[in-house]
Amino acid sequence: MSSTRDIDALIDMMARLPGLGPRSARRAVLHLIRKRDLKLTPLADLMQTVAATARECARCGNVGAAEICDICLSPKRGNGQICVVEDVADLWAMERAGVFKGRYHVLGGTLSALDQVGPEQLRIPRLVARIEEEEIGEVILALAATVDGQTTAHYIADQVEDRVRLTSLAQGVPIGGELDYLDEGTITAALNARKAL
Amino acid sequence: MSSTRDIDALIDMMARLPGLGPRSARRAVLHLIRKRDLKLTPLADLMQTVAATARECARCGNVGAAEICDICLSPKRGNGQICVVEDVADLWAMERAGVFKGRYHVLGGTLSALDQVGPEQLRIPRLVARIEEEEIGEVILALAATVDGQTTAHYIADQVEDRVRLTSLAQGVPIGGELDYLDEGTITAALNARKAL
Repeated sequence: MSSTRDIDALIDMMARLPGLGPRSARRAVLHLIRKRDLKLTPLADLMQTVAATARECARCGNVGAAEICDICLSPKRGNGQICVVEDVADLWAMERAGVFKGRYHVLGGTLSALDQVGPEQLRIPRLVARIEEEEIGEVILALAATVDGQTTAHYIADQVEDRVRLTSLAQGVPIGGELDYLDEGTITAALNARKAL
Repeated sequence: MSSTRDIDALIDMMARLPGLGPRSARRAVLHLIRKRDLKLTPLADLMQTVAATARECARCGNVGAAEICDICLSPKRGNGQICVVEDVADLWAMERAGVFKGRYHVLGGTLSALDQVGPEQLRIPRLVARIEEEEIGEVILALAATVDGQTTAHYIADQVEDRVRLTSLAQGVPIGGELDYLDEGTITAALNARKAL
């Protein structure tokens, strides 16, 4: 009896993960049980390890194994640039592109009057302190083009614009994007930022 | 260093689960790491427990904690009916409907010449044996309306039709289904099986 309840509890927990639902959780759990030794046990072990070791970097907010993350520790990444992102997922997306060679600062959200998120909750004072400590020459804002994202960008600009060069990611047509499928806002931004060939 | 690699490995394993991909695996893992004590550790513990206890019922192929599953053990379910399903997921779907009061037989697949799946791989001899042992009066085939599913249904029918009453799930318009969205095959089946009001 006990394990049927455990299996149900496992499906229930999996179903609450973002991107999954009851149906995909059931499929995933059945798949794991069928390949118990090959998949379920290793996955459980790996989760235990990550639960025991994962922590937030005290400097930038990235997720890693140590007090200070690999990117903050690497001397190669100390080029005087900090890229400000909302979330660790955004940091990972930037790293996948592999083009940015500086360090990051993860805010952990955006300013939001509705959700009562203020500058202190977002590590903004920490960002200001880092600009002095790490001799930062450029802060690149890579925040979402939403109301909250842009409010946050303006607030950060107010705090740091007299100390460093401040830039933000370009807006325009995505690579491979067809005009027909783009919203008017993106087309307007792309036209306004048009470049000479 | 080690944990960044562990986190990557965890994302990689999650991404291989059915229904997930790299993107949703990354989201799920970040979510789990953020709620480490509340979610990641309990999920890892539960997976360990299920990995240690889950097993296939020796009689019907259902997944449970004991040598013989709850449904096979329950005297209430011994009404002389066996519902033949392809997969444990199908058994769970039948149980969610809550209308079937007999026992199950999980084939673990369908006959397939292409994939070299024969009757022995599918517990069909076991089904024939159960009909005698458990004094079964009716076998209900709840197999998919695919070529392989119907081939399997015909094969089972050949084996057991002179011993028991053999039925299969009705085909027709799903409850809440709109004709406009149904395929021609379903409409044809529903029309052929029409009932007097």
